[in-house]
Amino acid sequence: MTAADVVGADVAGADLAAALRAAVGDHGLVTDPDATAGYARDMMPLAPHGRPYAVVLPTTTEQVQACVRACAAARVPIVPRGAGTGLTGAANAVDGCVVLVTTRMDRIIELDPDNRLAVVEPGVINQRLKTAAAAHGLYYPPDPSSLETCTLGGNLATNAGGLCCGKYGVTGDYVLGLEAVLADGSLLRTGRRTVKGVAGYDLTRLLVGSEGTLGVITRATLALRPLPAAPGTVVAAFDSVAKAGASVNRVVRAGLVPSLMEIMDATSLRASSAHLGTDLAGADDQALLLCQTDAAGSVGEAELDRLEKLFRQSGAVWTHATRDAAEGALLLRARRVSLTALEAQGACMTEDVAVPRTRIAELIEGCAQIGDTAGLTVAVVGHAGDGNMHPTVLYDRHDDREQARARTAFDAILDLALSLGGTITGEHGVGKLKQDWLEREIGPVGLRVHRAVKAALDPAGLFNPGGMLRPAGDPDRP
Amino acid sequence: MTAADVVGADVAGADLAAALRAAVGDHGLVTDPDATAGYARDMMPLAPHGRPYAVVLPTTTEQVQACVRACAAARVPIVPRGAGTGLTGAANAVDGCVVLVTTRMDRIIELDPDNRLAVVEPGVINQRLKTAAAAHGLYYPPDPSSLETCTLGGNLATNAGGLCCGKYGVTGDYVLGLEAVLADGSLLRTGRRTVKGVAGYDLTRLLVGSEGTLGVITRATLALRPLPAAPGTVVAAFDSVAKAGASVNRVVRAGLVPSLMEIMDATSLRASSAHLGTDLAGADDQALLLCQTDAAGSVGEAELDRLEKLFRQSGAVWTHATRDAAEGALLLRARRVSLTALEAQGACMTEDVAVPRTRIAELIEGCAQIGDTAGLTVAVVGHAGDGNMHPTVLYDRHDDREQARARTAFDAILDLALSLGGTITGEHGVGKLKQDWLEREIGPVGLRVHRAVKAALDPAGLFNPGGMLRPAGDPDRP
Repeated sequence: MTAADVVGADVAGADLAAALRAAVGDHGLVTDPDATAGYARDMMPLAPHGRPYAVVLPTTTEQVQACVRACAAARVPIVPRGAGTGLTGAANAVDGCVVLVTTRMDRIIELDPDNRLAVVEPGVINQRLKTAAAAHGLYYPPDPSSLETCTLGGNLATNAGGLCCGKYGVTGDYVLGLEAVLADGSLLRTGRRTVKGVAGYDLTRLLVGSEGTLGVITRATLALRPLPAAPGTVVAAFDSVAKAGASVNRVVRAGLVPSLMEIMDATSLRASSAHLGTDLAGADDQALLLCQTDAAGSVGEAELDRLEKLFRQSGAVWTHATRDAAEGALLLRARRVSLTALEAQGACMTEDVAVPRTRIAELIEGCAQIGDTAGLTVAVVGHAGDGNMHPTVLYDRHDDREQARARTAFDAILDLALSLGGTITGEHGVGKLKQDWLEREIGPVGLRVHRAVKAALDPAGLFNPGGMLRPAGDPDRP
Repeated sequence: MTAADVVGADVAGADLAAALRAAVGDHGLVTDPDATAGYARDMMPLAPHGRPYAVVLPTTTEQVQACVRACAAARVPIVPRGAGTGLTGAANAVDGCVVLVTTRMDRIIELDPDNRLAVVEPGVINQRLKTAAAAHGLYYPPDPSSLETCTLGGNLATNAGGLCCGKYGVTGDYVLGLEAVLADGSLLRTGRRTVKGVAGYDLTRLLVGSEGTLGVITRATLALRPLPAAPGTVVAAFDSVAKAGASVNRVVRAGLVPSLMEIMDATSLRASSAHLGTDLAGADDQALLLCQTDAAGSVGEAELDRLEKLFRQSGAVWTHATRDAAEGALLLRARRVSLTALEAQGACMTEDVAVPRTRIAELIEGCAQIGDTAGLTVAVVGHAGDGNMHPTVLYDRHDDREQARARTAFDAILDLALSLGGTITGEHGVGKLKQDWLEREIGPVGLRVHRAVKAALDPAGLFNPGGMLRPAGDPDRP
């Protein structure tokens, strides 16, 4: 039985409020339901959320420890949260919980150019670290779309990705060490400051991507890279998704590793065109590849040439290449605004499946069929360089039956991704949205080990109950 | 109480032998003590080892499962083992155990150039995968010194590194997914085939580097990279370790990422010179940096020039650069033979500490002082690109008092590394050699979490008892 099962807003009484106030002060405690409601959910409309008992905004690790101890004593669950830009409800409140918001722990404690690392608190905005690193000629690659508002703490909790991952990997690839407050209030230090180190189990990687279910990350030591060259950009349009997919395969086969390779289908292309008021593609273009290389000097130029030539050989209707970084950024806008552009056409259920790179075309074509069956539009954009696709189902949020059909389509896309050898989530996570699908992907042995690990670190189920893993005794799943 | 506490060779009787024979056949079971002794220890003389009850050499995952179930039923511990090239006793037998050797599971099941991945069994020799990948223009970077004899299973279990890590990372950075047999004989599948994926806890990384304490890895899906260009090489000699260390800092500051950057101190230089019968350095040279870049074309040439110029500006006594890969390999021989050359001078205790790159010179100078105090020679070679240093204490194995002084020096080096913000192991692991030091590095909270994770996956302590973690009830540590 987890804490979530036994507590509710009515159970958590004045004692807990007093303990939390003692921990974080008046300024760090929110109990007004109108105010706490603003912390009840992230940006995924499909995931369930409850009403928090309180919200705390600690400013130090010690305050986090005090909050955790107070909640543990009161058996009131804690849902850790960053900026709330998540897309799976991972940080959504459960009824009667305390939402622990890390945004006020926002110091860049150290930036060490000689060892190419930064030590940060979880509330630092992703872009702020990028900017601070760039001032030293250094680069923090992970770049989720929300990078101007999302926090590193949330990035760590979800192992966030972005557009850079085909070449530069994801958040977890940059984490040397962590500090995290455990369910008993103790402080766990994992990892190291050195480039290499294998002392003990990799608890750093266990915490990264654990979606707030194992502890509250209060500090991170992050590796940085030298700042790459300004990128060159090449765009290629195709009259079929299959040709665009085949082009991706040829890029991989040619031994090229673009710093960015995005794909947009016809629906997302038209939506972005309408949103930006420009013609991004011809009327018959069925897919666009946007590709960048940040290799330096003549190597970068040669790579750009090879990419453009390869796209032409693969049957591109047209291509356009530029070494001008500003023009490249302008071309990329079509991709960056795609979700906003789609949202202008209706409510969106955005997927986050990943498939082997060779199966991208099959996924996109399958999504179109799923849309046809549901009588709904499914637009696909995605990170072609790593196979992480974001099919988006458009629907009318005021039409319950259409919403149900959209949900059916959403599930059909997950099913399709698994059947193509893929995964249910490339970078957004499981959250309170895909627990059933997680069980299906990892199977009974995997689920058993997940539950054992969760119980080992958080035996009372204090942290984020119902997040990632459905509680073992969930009445919905006997 | 762990399995190791309650069993011994006398307890494990005919039933177990019969069950193991049924599992792996006559050909896969070794019980003759003369023969099993050959599987009792790895290449680290300092680590304790016991006498196995039996050795099994399964050829399939199902055979591994049957062996694990048989041992679990008999409460006889299992020590998993690859080729036995480890340097911490991680695969050393405990009295009465079954050593489970994975060398006969040696198939490269799949090599998929379009998705840049390989699926392998644990007994595949590291170099064999490199060669198979190269035939497709692909590269499997991890390159421990034993790469021509060590197995990928051992590499995975220890999260092995090598000379490439400053640029290309370690074994764990190439693992997409695993299959492992757990303590109840069930088969756990972790990870995925896709480049990206965040479904659930990162059990893949939890198993990598767990040194056979959580399960037996029976299959791995490994990411590959495009084969880089043939490397250019630059060698630079310095009249002080401090100047060599400062050069490393300047390389990092300049935003350069060599594909290899090794450092040798005067003692190891002279030993390698004597061994190879050549003059590698002048009589007054105190340190040598060996550096390679595998950047392509003109970028590689420019990088080589910058490195050489930078070494000169840092006060190198002499430098030598070549784009000829064969000459580069010849220059690197001095580094590659260093341990063999030192072993010709006496018994060796080889350390594996890692420090922040900025502290390399302090570590090497500290090692010289530790040697002076002990009245012993301490030679240092190491991976300057990532701060992973291998100080080696030379001693006379027939002189017990000298051996004791050597062990004191060995421990003093660990102490020094921790005081410099480093770790007790960069790539060799903890094994049965450094459990006390692990406790010191990770602290009481870290140890508690390690024990909880171990208990969650292996509650009876079936796998590799005394490996990495001293059993909780160890009489040596109340």
